[in-house]
Amino acid sequence: MGCWLIGKTHMKADVDGMARLGLSPDSEIGARQSECGFDSWIRDDGLWGAGPDGFYDEKRSPYNEYLKTKGYPSDNPWADFANAGVDDDGNKATGWMFANANKPANIREEDSETPWLTRETIAFIDQAKSPWCAHVSFIKPHWPYIVPTPYHDMFGANHVPEAVRHDKERDDPHPVLGAYMGNKIARAFQREDVRQKVIPAYMGLIKQCDDQLGVLLDHLEATGQTDNTMIVLTSDHGDYLGDHWMGEKDLFHDQSVKIPMIIFDPRPAADATRGATCDALVESIDLAPTFVEVAGGTVSKNILEGRSLIPWLHGQSPDWRDFAISEFDYSVTPQAVKLGLEPNDCRLFMVFDGRYKLMHALGGFRPMLFDLHTDPQEFDDLAKGDAHQHIIDMMYGHLADWGRRNAQRVTKTDDDIKNTRGRSLRRGILPFLVDGTEVPDELTANYRGPAPKRFVED
Amino acid sequence: MGCWLIGKTHMKADVDGMARLGLSPDSEIGARQSECGFDSWIRDDGLWGAGPDGFYDEKRSPYNEYLKTKGYPSDNPWADFANAGVDDDGNKATGWMFANANKPANIREEDSETPWLTRETIAFIDQAKSPWCAHVSFIKPHWPYIVPTPYHDMFGANHVPEAVRHDKERDDPHPVLGAYMGNKIARAFQREDVRQKVIPAYMGLIKQCDDQLGVLLDHLEATGQTDNTMIVLTSDHGDYLGDHWMGEKDLFHDQSVKIPMIIFDPRPAADATRGATCDALVESIDLAPTFVEVAGGTVSKNILEGRSLIPWLHGQSPDWRDFAISEFDYSVTPQAVKLGLEPNDCRLFMVFDGRYKLMHALGGFRPMLFDLHTDPQEFDDLAKGDAHQHIIDMMYGHLADWGRRNAQRVTKTDDDIKNTRGRSLRRGILPFLVDGTEVPDELTANYRGPAPKRFVED
Repeated sequence: MGCWLIGKTHMKADVDGMARLGLSPDSEIGARQSECGFDSWIRDDGLWGAGPDGFYDEKRSPYNEYLKTKGYPSDNPWADFANAGVDDDGNKATGWMFANANKPANIREEDSETPWLTRETIAFIDQAKSPWCAHVSFIKPHWPYIVPTPYHDMFGANHVPEAVRHDKERDDPHPVLGAYMGNKIARAFQREDVRQKVIPAYMGLIKQCDDQLGVLLDHLEATGQTDNTMIVLTSDHGDYLGDHWMGEKDLFHDQSVKIPMIIFDPRPAADATRGATCDALVESIDLAPTFVEVAGGTVSKNILEGRSLIPWLHGQSPDWRDFAISEFDYSVTPQAVKLGLEPNDCRLFMVFDGRYKLMHALGGFRPMLFDLHTDPQEFDDLAKGDAHQHIIDMMYGHLADWGRRNAQRVTKTDDDIKNTRGRSLRRGILPFLVDGTEVPDELTANYRGPAPKRFVED
Repeated sequence: MGCWLIGKTHMKADVDGMARLGLSPDSEIGARQSECGFDSWIRDDGLWGAGPDGFYDEKRSPYNEYLKTKGYPSDNPWADFANAGVDDDGNKATGWMFANANKPANIREEDSETPWLTRETIAFIDQAKSPWCAHVSFIKPHWPYIVPTPYHDMFGANHVPEAVRHDKERDDPHPVLGAYMGNKIARAFQREDVRQKVIPAYMGLIKQCDDQLGVLLDHLEATGQTDNTMIVLTSDHGDYLGDHWMGEKDLFHDQSVKIPMIIFDPRPAADATRGATCDALVESIDLAPTFVEVAGGTVSKNILEGRSLIPWLHGQSPDWRDFAISEFDYSVTPQAVKLGLEPNDCRLFMVFDGRYKLMHALGGFRPMLFDLHTDPQEFDDLAKGDAHQHIIDMMYGHLADWGRRNAQRVTKTDDDIKNTRGRSLRRGILPFLVDGTEVPDELTANYRGPAPKRFVED
């Protein structure tokens, strides 16, 4: 089954590593190494910002090239049209400035990122001649926050929920949380005027995504592919948008880490759970083994740490993990500088057992701990006091167990190991014989008999 | 600097992984991938046992080929001559049977493994035209235990020290230790007659190694290379030989895990420590960065977990690790079968802080704990009772810290990370602007100015 990339991935090729292995980027293997293992139908990472030092992304954008062919007159129509409106004076009103978030993007809706990628996906599906797995990765919803009409004013300040935050969160916050609360994005989203401008735009981008997903599903249905296509809708992270006094995505509150995951398995075996929700501690790494199983392959547990979700989809109750893990490395961020940390100390670990959520921060900091049963909004950091040391110890125990997972034996499967057991005995490795009577004669046959020649004196 | 392999390594090429990457075993890169990264001068893993199912090692032996050219008439002269003597009836007396360990091997001493590899090493040195790093890896001392004359009777039972063992070790032993104590090798070495036969042979093999190292050092001196050659003498493991009721090498008592390491650095900067010993918690993984530093390279901390030993050699007292780690996987052994464990549970971890040594065993077992200050012989497993839980907790804390070491960020150095900090700002990524007044004008210049064309209505 071909595996295809359509849209965004933030993966950067390990150019030096590939050179060491002699992998040319334009060889089949090299191209896949450069594209997270996928064949690339069309890749566009969707962040074509440019400043005094040039473009943020050193590649070039197929989406920008598309816009140029559609008559958008600019070297960077992504910035000038898809992600900018027009102000009253006829000037660009960039989506980078939240003040412009309620203006319509200066682009035909059909030419904006999401419909463009939907059409690319349909074009891929229509030409495919063999079974496929497609990673269809939309950039939006994402900053810059500006939305094509009619989605730009579909939602207003009246639709914006109150920020999920509490003053006590700012009282002696964990140092890493404190650093993040004080950064530029967080400070912007602490402003109600910013939330009331940006969140309706965010909602508009989501509604556009919903509609385009409908276009895609209609196409699958119209072409008779609904019954043999598994569909997974998920995301790489959430967004605080002012909750917990935060912006963006960098810590482990549910707003950031509890991502949507909707799976449609067309097979009758999934009928039992259709429309149901599942509270199991599922991780994104479970998708790869799920896909391998669906494709009829054997899941290599020595390579893939996740577990197939098919048992859940088919109404079984498999023995499952007791805790979920998330990791974050903020070593390139201003928070690393603010906290004065070396790169290796800018690493965060979350362990969540369904009730308690612990964050371990390297760099000598205390942990954070939330009890989601008694505090589902995650306002009370129980690690501020010392009343929950036994819970903290338990969660650190989980994290330590995870730290000792077998991430090293990747070249041999469990079956390889089991098939090796006892093998050396019948291949002449007998480092325990006193006189040979310990084993059947056939094992020592090669080592007995006349000496072919004598080279030493008696 | 070329890096050369001369002799034994037990590394097996990842043939499937190489095929996936399109690496041919006979390409330069493929050959190095197949030889632990080295160029191979001569590789011989030294274990040419054969039984009813054929050879243990699927490669072929250059050493065996050498013996054939020297007139040893056999398909496997390693087994028939280098590792066998002759009994009174003119039959082969294989070194696999300890009963034969005091017989001389049926081989000219000069043709036995150790002198052969020494000559190969000298041949390598003599032809080298540029600086080199050579991994000279002798198979002996190693089973089969049989020794060429005159080393075969240089030591006798009178030289064999008493086994370092105590009855209390067999009282409720840790299950993994218990399984090992009961295996065939351990049971053999629990016999005094076996120890008195095998250990003098082992001593003879070591003495032969010592003498051949002398040949090598003499050659370096005679060719004027002593002053520009760093020499490291070390081993991959020790051997219980009956201590702790054990054979071989599989657990973490000092007999197995505390390996010799002698470093000669010819540079004057090392004069201050010449002849000195160092009690720092040094690990074998420290050698690679040591060699990189000696060769004038920059140690990539993101790739190499070890640390250069040069500061110790040059009389400095670097801030050093607080604990040493050792890992062991016994999933292919009979002990795994005996304990009924799946492969991933057959994994052992040692953490040693200079005083306490903890063994953590997966599979639901309790740990082992020794206090080497009060019990240098490691007879008292303090984890049998519950009086040392605070020490056990402390050691588990070290192990958990190690489990969270940054083993994932291998493609970027710390400097890469630091150089990335703040970079996106000047490349047009500004996801925090309310109205643009937050940053200097140059950062938003690309996003201002007249809209090139209008695509949406006001």
